Amino acid sequence: MRGLWLEGSSLRLRDDLADPAPPPGEALIRILRAGVCNTDLEMVRGYFAYTGVPGHEFVGVVEAAPGAEEWVGRRVVGEINASCRTCSTCRAGRPTHCPTRTVLGIVKRNGSHAERIVLPVANLHEVPSAVGDDVAVFTEPLAAALEIQEQVRVGPGDRVVVVGSGKLGTLVAQTLALTGCDLTVLGRNAQTLRPLADRGIRVGGQEALAPGRADLAVECTGNPDGFSIARQAVRPRGTIVLKSTYHGETALNLAMVVVDEITLVGSRCGPFAPALDLLARGLVDVRPLLADRFALADAPAAYERAARPGTLKVLIDAA
Amino acid sequence: MRGLWLEGSSLRLRDDLADPAPPPGEALIRILRAGVCNTDLEMVRGYFAYTGVPGHEFVGVVEAAPGAEEWVGRRVVGEINASCRTCSTCRAGRPTHCPTRTVLGIVKRNGSHAERIVLPVANLHEVPSAVGDDVAVFTEPLAAALEIQEQVRVGPGDRVVVVGSGKLGTLVAQTLALTGCDLTVLGRNAQTLRPLADRGIRVGGQEALAPGRADLAVECTGNPDGFSIARQAVRPRGTIVLKSTYHGETALNLAMVVVDEITLVGSRCGPFAPALDLLARGLVDVRPLLADRFALADAPAAYERAARPGTLKVLIDAA
Repeated sequence: MRGLWLEGSSLRLRDDLADPAPPPGEALIRILRAGVCNTDLEMVRGYFAYTGVPGHEFVGVVEAAPGAEEWVGRRVVGEINASCRTCSTCRAGRPTHCPTRTVLGIVKRNGSHAERIVLPVANLHEVPSAVGDDVAVFTEPLAAALEIQEQVRVGPGDRVVVVGSGKLGTLVAQTLALTGCDLTVLGRNAQTLRPLADRGIRVGGQEALAPGRADLAVECTGNPDGFSIARQAVRPRGTIVLKSTYHGETALNLAMVVVDEITLVGSRCGPFAPALDLLARGLVDVRPLLADRFALADAPAAYERAARPGTLKVLIDAA
Repeated sequence: MRGLWLEGSSLRLRDDLADPAPPPGEALIRILRAGVCNTDLEMVRGYFAYTGVPGHEFVGVVEAAPGAEEWVGRRVVGEINASCRTCSTCRAGRPTHCPTRTVLGIVKRNGSHAERIVLPVANLHEVPSAVGDDVAVFTEPLAAALEIQEQVRVGPGDRVVVVGSGKLGTLVAQTLALTGCDLTVLGRNAQTLRPLADRGIRVGGQEALAPGRADLAVECTGNPDGFSIARQAVRPRGTIVLKSTYHGETALNLAMVVVDEITLVGSRCGPFAPALDLLARGLVDVRPLLADRFALADAPAAYERAARPGTLKVLIDAA
């Protein structure tokens, strides 16, 4: 089959990949649409090592599911962590942290920037017919945005600042706005701030930062500047959620974390079911995020496009 | 009156300090016993600027309390943050973070390493007669240890690691042990670990570290090595409480905080009432922490003694 292949920092299109065969409990899925995520770009930059097909955002159709044939023909999205479901971490309710997990397109499991993947049936979620392919492909990053609310209580009256209005910041802002919190999105890009403003969300540049006022700040930029802004925004005993990964080490004034009793919360993958539900009900609008699309045959160009600064979501059309 | 005076890094005994006079709402307190804390030593090292009488741990007797005469003659300990009680931070229930607060012996308020202090009556707690002066003087650091349980739920079945068995680590360990959690204290000093082991607490050196197992790790060393041990100890989605202040900046791998969804919680001053209660009921034993005592006239020597590596609590006897 055709697919992208990453080895070190070398990314190339191959037509000679073996068609994957689903082991027991897993499904063979034909990819319709896949998204390029910053994590994919970081792997190409060599920030962490991966050899195989990259890509973890997708919507596709189940072609085979030995022992679970009722899934065949269904259009699905899938959770990206394939966990053992038997170890103490899994049994404690943290399967996304299973120490022996594979992760679609990230850890020891070929990903979605190809014609087909295999993924455990337990990871699949059927996509409601009301949700088109170009929308469904955003389920994974939207779920990641919703992880914040699995970790931190947010509600009306809470003063919340989202730092960054890129792909992740936009999804985080839209989901947090649904809680009725008092939300401000700080960003540099007028183009990405405007759709949020159109939804009634307060947006602005650094001048909109009210230091020491926020109960919660969500850092969605992945750079130390963004962290510093989040740190300034939050009040004593406030919470900073880190939604982006950072390359290398970041110098932190831990004394201020202690003196101001700040809580830092790392946040990664989230729940798919409520993400799909929000998309089906039209409560989150992903359309402003769509920057460009490329056929699978042009997937290397999709990565180049996605790597350009300020680019929002680039899709790969594998249908 | 007599007292220590800190200016820059210069610490000296003075006999010419003006006797403090209590403004409305405050009490004049004659110091019986005061403790030397690492924060005091850090100020002398110039880690942060303070000019005035240092010291924030004390037990004393109220000599005057204009408008609250019922306090006169009572033996008291006192919360160290003097807050306005009217600003939005105070009214939100966070008076220890009041932006205009003074802090006994730390921020714009002469401290307890002198014959007398003034402190708001609202900050005072009467010491039960069962609690002697040498025990009562530990109320403030014990309250700081209890702050952890104001911030994080800890109970039976929780795997907890305390990093450090110094003054703070010992108090933190004893208070956490009361929750019935599965507790391990990691320390380098056999002398300070032994009293904890005698209380049935699991203790050990680095060999006792079970990586990635702890639900909660409490960092009580204040150095980056201790933080690194806490980081190793804690499981994905676990919590690290930072109880000590750190000088300067600490390099942190924030990507791992995100990927493992770690929560970091800064923790400072805590509740006095339950601290006094634990001391009165004998549920926390501070005696193993007592290293040495000096008369107020020899207070500079008390600081020198306290600054020697591995020294536990040094008291200043002002009675």
